[in-house]
Amino acid sequence: MPYVTVKMLEGRTDEQKKALVDKVTEAVVETTGASVDKVVVFIEEMKKNHYAVAGKLESEK
Amino acid sequence: MPYVTVKMLEGRTDEQKKALVDKVTEAVVETTGASVDKVVVFIEEMKKNHYAVAGKLESEK
Amino acid sequence: MPYVTVKMLEGRTDEQKKALVDKVTEAVVETTGASVDKVVVFIEEMKKNHYAVAGKLESEK
Amino acid sequence: MPYVTVKMLEGRTDEQKKALVDKVTEAVVETTGASVDKVVVFIEEMKKNHYAVAGKLESEK
Amino acid sequence: MPYVTVKMLEGRTDEQKKALVDKVTEAVVETTGASVDKVVVFIEEMKKNHYAVAGKLESEK
Amino acid sequence: MPYVTVKMLEGRTDEQKKALVDKVTEAVVETTGASVDKVVVFIEEMKKNHYAVAGKLESEK
Repeated sequence: MPYVTVKMLEGRTDEQKKALVDKVTEAVVETTGASVDKVVVFIEEMKKNHYAVAGKLESEK
Repeated sequence: MPYVTVKMLEGRTDEQKKALVDKVTEAVVETTGASVDKVVVFIEEMKKNHYAVAGKLESEK
Repeated sequence: MPYVTVKMLEGRTDEQKKALVDKVTEAVVETTGASVDKVVVFIEEMKKNHYAVAGKLESEK
Repeated sequence: MPYVTVKMLEGRTDEQKKALVDKVTEAVVETTGASVDKVVVFIEEMKKNHYAVAGKLESEK
Repeated sequence: MPYVTVKMLEGRTDEQKKALVDKVTEAVVETTGASVDKVVVFIEEMKKNHYAVAGKLESEK
Repeated sequence: MPYVTVKMLEGRTDEQKKALVDKVTEAVVETTGASVDKVVVFIEEMKKNHYAVAGKLESEK
């Protein structure tokens, strides 16, 4: 604890994902006082035809 | 804002998904007063072997 | 099924919430072919100090 | 209702998933008094490169 | 890991919640082979005016 | 997009929450290339009697 879920469009590289979980964990530890070994990060990837803003799917844009 | 997540079994067509996000966004704008460009819709699809009602997976039925 | 979660800032009236779940259910039935009695809607309300865009909490704005 | 989501790394067999939803449903009925036909269970599988503890992706370990 | 979220209407006693997390954890360990100390359970309670089936809020029934 | 949800026990101060969303947003921008004004952060607070590890509620410990 804390548990962080990052929901984003698919397409980032594994290198970006490694850096993302590292830096987000660091940010959580620094600001909440949680111990690093307790911080959990989930990445949830979205397809463009499963994500819409203003009533339009990203895949329609 | 608001953020709407629609969780459903896989199998709908892209046409159905386009209509779904369009009509759901319309419903949210009409009833909450949110502006259309702020409404976000996520579609989350489930496999039949990952969804159970009354203790039975849909894939078992 | 489908299951719809609407995440929004607190502050809407019960009348708005009644209309919201009614219209969203209608939209889902109309576009996915689901039967109305199977559609579930969850409302999740957020406090302004628990929601941030561009690194700033709504409560800071 | 209740609605149970089980989030876990991918890799379990369909047999394990069948047993999982069965036993979890049983546990929910036994302790909350809910009727079995109302209990819904969702399984959400994670890839190792989408799950991190202590700032490290499982795929890095 | 696994992470279990139980979403249900408010109203259960603390005794029921204790039994719920205990039995659900047992069910997960028994069927997935996860070790007990890794299993996490979140309870999310819903108000009747934030939960609708078939387009009607529970608070309307 | 991306959308980040931080789920943690209640008890942090508003100052900590301000710093949390600021630093997490920074981490996401730095590692994914997302533009800062698109990053959304939700904070979800848990009560001790709604969070269990190894079958025991935090409120039991």
